[in-house]
Formats: sequence, structure tokens, C-alpha cells
Amino acid sequence: MDIHGGNIYKTAKEYGIGQDEILDYSANINPLGVPESVRKNIISTMDKLTNYPDPECTDLKAGISAYVGIPQENIIVGNGASEIIFLLFEALEIKSLLLPAPTFAEYAKAAQRLKVEIKYFEMKEEDDFRLNVESLMESITEGMDAILLCNPNNPTSKLVSKAGLLTLLEYAKTKNIVVILDEAFIELTCEGTGSSMAEYIPLYDKLFIVRAFTKLFAIPGLRLGYGVGDREIIRKMWHKKMPWSVNSFACSLGNIFSEEQAYLHKTALWLAAEKERFYAELCKLEKLKVFEPQANFILLKILEEGLSSSQLRDRFARKGILIRDASNFTFLNDSYIRIAVKDRESNERFMRVVRKVMYDG
Amino acid sequence: MDIHGGNIYKTAKEYGIGQDEILDYSANINPLGVPESVRKNIISTMDKLTNYPDPECTDLKAGISAYVGIPQENIIVGNGASEIIFLLFEALEIKSLLLPAPTFAEYAKAAQRLKVEIKYFEMKEEDDFRLNVESLMESITEGMDAILLCNPNNPTSKLVSKAGLLTLLEYAKTKNIVVILDEAFIELTCEGTGSSMAEYIPLYDKLFIVRAFTKLFAIPGLRLGYGVGDREIIRKMWHKKMPWSVNSFACSLGNIFSEEQAYLHKTALWLAAEKERFYAELCKLEKLKVFEPQANFILLKILEEGLSSSQLRDRFARKGILIRDASNFTFLNDSYIRIAVKDRESNERFMRVVRKVMYDG
Repeated sequence: MDIHGGNIYKTAKEYGIGQDEILDYSANINPLGVPESVRKNIISTMDKLTNYPDPECTDLKAGISAYVGIPQENIIVGNGASEIIFLLFEALEIKSLLLPAPTFAEYAKAAQRLKVEIKYFEMKEEDDFRLNVESLMESITEGMDAILLCNPNNPTSKLVSKAGLLTLLEYAKTKNIVVILDEAFIELTCEGTGSSMAEYIPLYDKLFIVRAFTKLFAIPGLRLGYGVGDREIIRKMWHKKMPWSVNSFACSLGNIFSEEQAYLHKTALWLAAEKERFYAELCKLEKLKVFEPQANFILLKILEEGLSSSQLRDRFARKGILIRDASNFTFLNDSYIRIAVKDRESNERFMRVVRKVMYDG
Repeated sequence: MDIHGGNIYKTAKEYGIGQDEILDYSANINPLGVPESVRKNIISTMDKLTNYPDPECTDLKAGISAYVGIPQENIIVGNGASEIIFLLFEALEIKSLLLPAPTFAEYAKAAQRLKVEIKYFEMKEEDDFRLNVESLMESITEGMDAILLCNPNNPTSKLVSKAGLLTLLEYAKTKNIVVILDEAFIELTCEGTGSSMAEYIPLYDKLFIVRAFTKLFAIPGLRLGYGVGDREIIRKMWHKKMPWSVNSFACSLGNIFSEEQAYLHKTALWLAAEKERFYAELCKLEKLKVFEPQANFILLKILEEGLSSSQLRDRFARKGILIRDASNFTFLNDSYIRIAVKDRESNERFMRVVRKVMYDG
């Protein structure tokens, strides 16, 4: 199994640092931390662990349905977004996938596991890693079943415009190709769910959207993702799904969107304040090229000759900060790293450390 | 998705009964309830939900290794036993599976999902649903890759002797066939782990054992299973596994076996006291045929003409008790039900209710 993002357990042991002292800039999650309602739900769910989780996740689906504004019949939940993507590939019996890259490596891994052929579409540094929708459409060839876009894209932090996506959806319709959008970070863009294509689910039966609770509510430990799409595809996915793959704690989170309005608002305020500020600070470092972020994480290129991403990662780790060595993303190399945007205080600590490790040796 | 065992959420709604008032005899879990150390671990894990679960589950593997007495390299953990079985079929690239039945329906479902051909071997009522190992071996044909035995078997509550299993393992070796034992209920037999074949893992590279925390520690809501087998197979399974499929709460349970010695002891005492007593009580009812249980659940056949398992299930549900309509197990029909063995008080309530629903109409 590949390990993505930070493995703080390993790092803590390797560098002899306490897990609590580590600042994890390699995982792109909401720095506001675990919402209060999640804690409450966990406590009250503890006494219900002796029951199997609700296999149909009725309350959870209802909560998601109200949040996304799409009927429950169009929603499936899973053990993280990974399970959703896996089930989707299976249900659609995808044989050939067009995948703009660099992007999240789990898509390729799920595809390989299911023997889906991947055709990569390269997003180039000279385009600032923006997706060129026209070129993408031109690269669609006969026999392709689906396109998968991470939007905003990990690790480049770029968002495709809704106009661009609509053009793509119209074209895909004529080619009978499914368009899968992974919106795992959609709430962590400045436009929030305003950038989401969920509203178009009723209009395009070939559109499928993957989401997760992970990043937005800072609960990667809990495992909860969901998918929104055509109800016939959703029905097939439920049928293929392993029973009870969503644990009882995750099942209990149906009310989170209504109960955490203040949290969602605070999240938007933090992002508005900190993303641009942190980006501007990073831009002052001439040894790094900073790709303008549209979400809560930033792709950086090391401009210092002879300094590799793994070396830099090591230097940061010694100072108790985990960063993401981005060298293993398709089309990237050992000049790239990815970091999260966190709260002001942490970002300031990051700036002090980056100056130390890149300038003081 | 099929629903196995009780769906108390649905029943509570359907019959207008509070979830807490329902006695769930359809799920076969330890009536001692959630162990104290699980609660403690959940509380202390809550603050770590902002981190991804340890993808390698290091501490958890170490705890299981010490409990089973098998090195960590021979152990994989998963999101319930379901994920383990699925990964195993995938890693072994099984094409054809011999499956004694009636048995747990999830095996067939996993096989179907992976296009594995199933050949059923019928365990007959006239044999009291005991597995005839000799006949099973005779039914092995050319090209078969694996045999899967649930031991003790769900829903029949029968255990195959270790001598019988050793004979099978020796024969399977000559035929190059994998023997998969699902020991999900092994601690809930009177012989406890004494009935397990785990000690033979180092001697037979074609032996694979599936276990779960679910039944023993009464935590089906938490989702945690594990597999013990040849390290090369285990390595392949880790490679195929979706990252972080085991949530952080489940990951935190490595210390449960050492911390819950008293719980394990109490479990053995309860089972010794209650299984035989409850069985003897049930045997007094002439409208039911009771198959002698070797684990914490009992298969029953309705002897009253015209009364089907679903009708009986309905009658029980109206009285707040869920039972398992066993009609959809392969080779069973609508005369069969399955019930759990619970604590004395609950079992007495069950006896009062069964007399009411079967004798007072």
C-alpha cells in the first residue's frame, strides 16, 4: 500500500518527536479541528456499538441530501471517498479512463486494481498546471468510458471553472462518456460549494460527484465519503457495496451540516483570511516557486539547485514539520512539494522554519 | 445490498418501537457489551481524528500478533472480515471456490463481485448440518482454487473438529488448494480459541484464517476484522488494500486483548452457563426443532405447519424481539430461523415471548 500525505506515526518514531509536537503540513485538512457535534455524536454512539451500523445509512443520507440539495436516491455513502470511487468504477464497468495529471494517486491505484486502462492527460507547468478543457476534449478517443477530474485538483490546488465544466459535460454527453468530479476539497475553496457542479446532477446523467467529510470537518480518522449521481448508477453501487462498510460513528453524522453552520462559516472566514496571506508570504521566498492556490493547499517548486524534495522533507521533519514530498505524482519530479494552509499561528511557524531550513542551511 | 441479521433501525420505525426497547436476537454478538477499554480508547482517539489512521496499523497488528501467537508479517487488518475476504479472493486470484452451505451469505456475494465461480457442497439436515469432511474432500474437482469454511458455521452453529480440519489441510496440500477458515465466532465456542487452527499457520502455507473483533467484543459498529496467513499472501493483500480502510478507533484497539483478560474470562463463563441452559429450555418446545449449538447462536426449525419464518419473525417483532429469518440461506427454506444466545435475563424474556407467539397465537 502506498502512503500518501503524512504518516505522523512513522515520523514521530523516526525523528524521536512526540506525535503531538508535529505540525502536519502534508495533510490538507481544516485546521479548525474536529467539530463539537462530531464529538457529541461519538459519545452518544458509543452505547450503540453493539448494533451493526445502519446498512442503508438512512439518517446520514437524509442529512447529505438536504445539504447537497439532491434526493436521497441519488446518494451513496462509503468508507472514505476511496470506496466510492472503487464502487463507481465497478458499477460502470469502466474499461478505459482519461485522467488529467498530476493528480491524486489513488485514482490510478483503484483503476489498476480493477484493470481499468488509464490514459493520462498532462497538465503542464507552463500553463501553471491549469486544465485546458479544449485540449482535454481533443484527447478523448474512441472507446473511452470516463474522465476523472479532481476539482480542485490535488496537488496543484487548481479549480476548473463551471463554464469549462459545462462545456466538457455537453461534449461528454455526445461521446457517451461519464464525467467524474472529485470535489473532496470543494468547501475549502474560496467560492466554497459555489464551485460545485452538484446542481447539475439532475441535468446530466453522465455526471458523478465524489465528496468526503474528511477534509472539511478534519476527520480523516473517521472515514466517510459520499457520491452523488444518476440514481440507476447509485442503485448499482449500493448493490455492489460491502455491507456496513460505513462505521456507526460515521453513520451518526447526518445532522452535522445543520448543526455546524457556525463551523462552516468560520471555515470560510479562516480560508479567506489565511490563504492569500500565506501565499503572499511564501512568494517572498526566491528559492521557491509558488503556484497560486485555489484551495487550502499549495504546490511549490524548489528552485535551489541540488536540493531535492526528499532532502527538504527531511530538513522540515527534523524541525517537527511534515511536508508532502510531491515527487511521486505523475508528471512531477523531485523538485516539488505540497503544503497545507493552516491557521495563522502555524503558518507563521512554518514561515520561520522554511527560512531556517532553506536559508540557514 | 442484502441485509443480514437485524436491522433494528428499520424494525424500530416499522413497528413503532424505540431502538432501545428492542432485543436483537438476530445478531450473534457477545451480550457482555462494549468492553471498558474500547470506550477509553474511543475517548482518547477523538482528539486524533484530525490525523489519518495509521495506514500500517502498527500497534493494532502488534496486539493481534501477541494474541494469536503469529508474527506481524502474517497479519492483515481490514474494515470488518468482509474486506479481508474480498482482499484474499483478489490476492489469490481465485477462480473457483468450494463452499459448504448453508453458510454466511457474504462469501458468495464477495465471490460474485469478483466473478469467482462457486460450487456449493450441501450440509444436510439429516446429518444435523455437520460437515462431512470425507465427502467434502471427495467433491473437490480439478481446477478448484479454494475451500471456504465458516468455523463454527453460521447459521448452523457447528464446529469442525481439529482432526477433521487437519485431514482436510493435508489433502488440500496435495491438491494445491487454499483452505480458508472464517473463525469470526471462535472465541464464542465453549472451547474458545482452543478450537482455532491458528497454530497451524506456520505449518500450512495454504491455510488462511479470518477473524473479527465484531462478535467477541460486541462492536459491530466499529468495523474491524483481521486475517492470518502466509506472509506472501498477506503482503499481496496489503498491497491491494485501500489505504486507511480501518478507521482510527479500530486502529486504537491493539491493547484490547491484554487489557480485557477479565472480559474474556467472563465471556467464557457466561457461555458455559447459558448456552446449554438456553438450549435445554428451547428443546422443551415441541413446535421447534433445535439444532444443538456449538457457538453463541442457535438454528431452529419451525415444526408448526403453515407457520413460516417470516410470519414468526413478524410475531416476534411485534413483541420487541428481532430474530433472523434464515430462509434465504442456501439450502434452507422458510422453516428456519436463527437466534442468538444472550444473557440469562434476556433469554428468559425470549422464552416467555416464544411461548406467547407460538402457543397463544
